[in-house]
Amino acid sequence: MSTQPWWQAACLAPDEAMSNAARARQAQLTKPAGSLGQLESLAIQLAGLQRRERPWVARPRLYLFAADHGVAAEGVSLFPQAVTVQMLHNFVAGGAAVSVLARAQGMPIELIDLGTVQEDLQLPGVRHLRLGAGTANFCEGPAMRVEQCQAALQAGRDAVQRAAEAGCDLFLAGEMGIANTTSATALLCALGGWPVAELTGRGTGLDAQGMSHKQAVIERALALHRPAMGEPFEVLRRLGGLEIAAMAGAYLACAQQGIAALVDGFICTAAAYCAVQLNPACRPWLLFAHASAERGHAVPVQALQAQPLLDLGLRLGEGSGAALALPLVRLACELHAGMTTFSEANVAEGDHP
Amino acid sequence: MSTQPWWQAACLAPDEAMSNAARARQAQLTKPAGSLGQLESLAIQLAGLQRRERPWVARPRLYLFAADHGVAAEGVSLFPQAVTVQMLHNFVAGGAAVSVLARAQGMPIELIDLGTVQEDLQLPGVRHLRLGAGTANFCEGPAMRVEQCQAALQAGRDAVQRAAEAGCDLFLAGEMGIANTTSATALLCALGGWPVAELTGRGTGLDAQGMSHKQAVIERALALHRPAMGEPFEVLRRLGGLEIAAMAGAYLACAQQGIAALVDGFICTAAAYCAVQLNPACRPWLLFAHASAERGHAVPVQALQAQPLLDLGLRLGEGSGAALALPLVRLACELHAGMTTFSEANVAEGDHP
Repeated sequence: MSTQPWWQAACLAPDEAMSNAARARQAQLTKPAGSLGQLESLAIQLAGLQRRERPWVARPRLYLFAADHGVAAEGVSLFPQAVTVQMLHNFVAGGAAVSVLARAQGMPIELIDLGTVQEDLQLPGVRHLRLGAGTANFCEGPAMRVEQCQAALQAGRDAVQRAAEAGCDLFLAGEMGIANTTSATALLCALGGWPVAELTGRGTGLDAQGMSHKQAVIERALALHRPAMGEPFEVLRRLGGLEIAAMAGAYLACAQQGIAALVDGFICTAAAYCAVQLNPACRPWLLFAHASAERGHAVPVQALQAQPLLDLGLRLGEGSGAALALPLVRLACELHAGMTTFSEANVAEGDHP
Repeated sequence: MSTQPWWQAACLAPDEAMSNAARARQAQLTKPAGSLGQLESLAIQLAGLQRRERPWVARPRLYLFAADHGVAAEGVSLFPQAVTVQMLHNFVAGGAAVSVLARAQGMPIELIDLGTVQEDLQLPGVRHLRLGAGTANFCEGPAMRVEQCQAALQAGRDAVQRAAEAGCDLFLAGEMGIANTTSATALLCALGGWPVAELTGRGTGLDAQGMSHKQAVIERALALHRPAMGEPFEVLRRLGGLEIAAMAGAYLACAQQGIAALVDGFICTAAAYCAVQLNPACRPWLLFAHASAERGHAVPVQALQAQPLLDLGLRLGEGSGAALALPLVRLACELHAGMTTFSEANVAEGDHP
């Protein structure tokens, strides 16, 4: 009997033959070779992931994972912890940034409350998983119990299962959780070995003093957990958050189910980085939406050799950056499928050197 | 009787009060202050241009200006000159990149042929202006006669007039013209005083040898015209193209009519730079869609203090980069108008330092 956790099971491999077919098609479209830049490689990559020469995104879905963080007690955020639940109300009412972006693009959002400080919260259309009253303060002990972290990973996997059943062809994750840049930074520093000072950023808008306090909190947590940290799962349960674990689980399940995932900003990239540590074979399934203005984002992006599509100084979260990059992914597919070829159009090809 | 040309007449001033109202609204939306980055300043800017606190883009229109260039005879492009006309056929058939992008977004395209080598060309839906069989080779003399260049500028102004009559709320220009990166580079170097070596790029894909030849061609043209070059109009008529002059005229007319314009890549930026030289008051009406992969683009972008929205390594032209940035402009407006405020949503505001 194997004790291998589900996330270590095999991921699907992208279909190289389909990527090659798409690359050949790109070379025939009526434009100078390479002139659509990153949108060409995106279409070629998606062809391999979707196993069709002409990929498309007809059914994108966004899964918004919310949870509270015990480390908020250390005063690392400008916003009170109650804002996590307030924003869940706002998502339900459709007034948040990601609500507007999804509505404008006809993209369904599913709201998943993994566990907030308001444990009896009951909102229409929200899946309340009640995995705890947020995480524990990781300055004092592990953020999650083993079974809690496992359940959070499974919640992400379950979301992907539902996405697959709905015919989803691009998976977007978003997050809400006051203090979660602190958790994401701690997690990244522990997994990647980066200095805390290099990754700690302003979050929702800390000043220099707030940043320096946040950095000290993270250093303290790392010092507490370092002796016991080993494999990535243990790091995740000690320093992560319920929503971060859920997104890591979702990205892993996407790679196992064969659904491309569009990764949002800093928090999502921390989850993605963690997913790649848990099972490196999930990496090809992750597309990166944008370069965040959050200071620590560039380092894991580079480590993952990711090429984000947008660079607009965004630092909002909620999956908003992924939702903003969605039109580009769709238009890359439209261009790839809808443009005519040189021979179809009777246009002379360039005299390529 | 004044002899002032039309493009020197007053441009409209953006409405500062509306921009201020939009800025105040942004500060109340349920998100950390500034967390939507460039999309916040875009909405604020558009509010001033459209004279409403909540700007929108419901009727974008793309005007595609095509023309041939005499300097193509110097062998500066990988593509034969016939491709300008072939691509006009392709635009009519809907198979080009910009055709696909416009169709996918429900944006009308108007095709304007200012003058190609095929002077009897008659295509359905194309406005053939027949200002000449392309420009003259500016290595041997001025590209345009005075009245030709005036007519091209007027053609851009006429397009904006039609756009205004159609209720257009965002003007996009695109261009097609084999060898027009050579013209755009010569024009920019002459207007901005930049070294030819700094701005000359690969165009549709020249190798190092091709680039060095193109650079020599531009140097030769500048040496020929430098003694006679004075005011910007004279530089434009000597080194520009019919489609470049038309776009410069269009950008100027946008500023006079009060329609925001979304500028595409290198060629369009050369036209925009020229427009700003002809009448600096047009600058606030120009939004910049993307940072092109064409080498010379960054310099005029910086000189214009522009912040392009996208940076995807595009270098296709046709207005394709502007069409790709259109969803971001629309979503910036949607976010600005559709998000709820802290007080409406009962969400606690951040404790801003």
